Amino acid sequence: MSDKKNRYPLIIVGAGPAGLTASVYASRYRIDHLVIGEFFGGLVTEAHKICNFPSEKEISGIDLMAKMKEQTRSFGTVILPDKVVDIVKDGKEFKLTTQMNKEFFAEVILLANGTENRKLNLAGEKEFLGKGVSYCATCDAIFFKDKIVAVVGGSDSANTASLYLAEVAKKVYQIYRKDELRGEAAWVEKIKYNEKIELVYNTEVVGLAGDGKLEKIILDKPYKGEQEIIVDGLFIEIGTIPQGDLVGKLPTIEMNDKHYIKVGQDQATSQAGIWAAGDITTGSNNFHQIITACSEGAVAVESIFKFLQNKK
Amino acid sequence: MSDKKNRYPLIIVGAGPAGLTASVYASRYRIDHLVIGEFFGGLVTEAHKICNFPSEKEISGIDLMAKMKEQTRSFGTVILPDKVVDIVKDGKEFKLTTQMNKEFFAEVILLANGTENRKLNLAGEKEFLGKGVSYCATCDAIFFKDKIVAVVGGSDSANTASLYLAEVAKKVYQIYRKDELRGEAAWVEKIKYNEKIELVYNTEVVGLAGDGKLEKIILDKPYKGEQEIIVDGLFIEIGTIPQGDLVGKLPTIEMNDKHYIKVGQDQATSQAGIWAAGDITTGSNNFHQIITACSEGAVAVESIFKFLQNKK
Repeated sequence: MSDKKNRYPLIIVGAGPAGLTASVYASRYRIDHLVIGEFFGGLVTEAHKICNFPSEKEISGIDLMAKMKEQTRSFGTVILPDKVVDIVKDGKEFKLTTQMNKEFFAEVILLANGTENRKLNLAGEKEFLGKGVSYCATCDAIFFKDKIVAVVGGSDSANTASLYLAEVAKKVYQIYRKDELRGEAAWVEKIKYNEKIELVYNTEVVGLAGDGKLEKIILDKPYKGEQEIIVDGLFIEIGTIPQGDLVGKLPTIEMNDKHYIKVGQDQATSQAGIWAAGDITTGSNNFHQIITACSEGAVAVESIFKFLQNKK
Repeated sequence: MSDKKNRYPLIIVGAGPAGLTASVYASRYRIDHLVIGEFFGGLVTEAHKICNFPSEKEISGIDLMAKMKEQTRSFGTVILPDKVVDIVKDGKEFKLTTQMNKEFFAEVILLANGTENRKLNLAGEKEFLGKGVSYCATCDAIFFKDKIVAVVGGSDSANTASLYLAEVAKKVYQIYRKDELRGEAAWVEKIKYNEKIELVYNTEVVGLAGDGKLEKIILDKPYKGEQEIIVDGLFIEIGTIPQGDLVGKLPTIEMNDKHYIKVGQDQATSQAGIWAAGDITTGSNNFHQIITACSEGAVAVESIFKFLQNKK
């Protein structure tokens, strides 16, 4: 491929499960396309252990995405490690601008840029990032060997974070605002039997304190008589929100009240020429899983293939 | 598990990609369930080569389903090799009867019993089965080493059958009623460059002849001046149709005009308590792929999990 090539029938924005599966299908349909993704493998690579992908008994997010990467690249597809920051309609095409200030043109776009970690939005949360505060247990657990950590959240991602941290840390407080953990019963059972994990229900973290690094967290109500817990680390695992910056620049794309992109059965958005797949959409009954993201990528490309054929 | 156990919250009918993925999710949600499937792995096991599963560069249908089987069984799930032949509503439950005359009861059913090979419905088609006529190149190609075979069809399954047969047979006629092959361009290109494969367009097979075994096929119009082609084998690869016998006994389940089961975003059917996933449904924009079937199985079980929780 020439370095100067910047015009494609299809550009896929995002290199997670949806984007890479879409790329595989596009390759099989011989649709010339480019994948642009900030993070190879997407947010999945943060997953320590995946036990519900149908063809893998147990696999890490990194290993699963490495397999998808190998499959995608076997077709010669170029994956550009960059971030699309702007999309505008430009005549019959779309013009995409990246963070590195490159410009690309596409007849059709597939948005598969997923979600990002939700923040607590506390004072100091940004400053303590990498100094005690983390959004990724898989990435950072290793820095908390024999230390005391807290996990905020009660869903699958919080539950797996607690279990993983318990393998390394001395003590894990899991703090959840409701009175029962959510998500897969398999994880919940394991947490309840794990002696290192202490569940703190009906409680929220409302403040962070420390000198240069995180030293304690402040709760909204006393726990065992104390309003604070001394910790070395805090893992914020309260879910994800759609990557909204880009979509916000496309006012014609309809979203639901939580800012997920509305899609039809064929993964088309309300903007002609733009499809969406994966965690960023309302597809698959809003059940955001690796396997549903992959499926949406495939469905989108079949629809895009027919669209491009009809244009000929 | 006791041999006498015959009552489950959930029974999954079918052991292909949709059924097995559903089982994995049900296990993770700790929903006690049974899988009943006539063929382990479903119709996928007939696929010689799969190149569009996102995490596998190239894999046979049998190998991919063996991986899903390993994953399913790792949770201790029982997969009964039997066929459900009847389902009736029985008070608050459903009663399922199998070919081996066993009875099971379920609060909720997931139909994931897929499709079967479409027949040409020619005189002699049944009699020549295994004596020249086949619906599965992967299974039977080996019997046609250095022989002359014909493939009927123009979709991905016909195209891959031709390519696989060309590796073994002396000569492959691919007979298609339209004037251009369908499906993935990647397969179509390979066929056009394969010297062993001769494409016969705009033609249909209307008769079979032979003494004890298939010896020739009769065409609806002459090809190179002849109304017949002498062959040792005929592979009928004209798509699939939903496994309709069972659904026909459930008159409250709505189907489309091609007898695929209509499902909502949550894979629920029009019959309360019955969900459907995989090739048998109208889900995933009617794009019937391994990855879409897996996804539908996962989505169905998440919905079933909520349904069972709300009943408690």
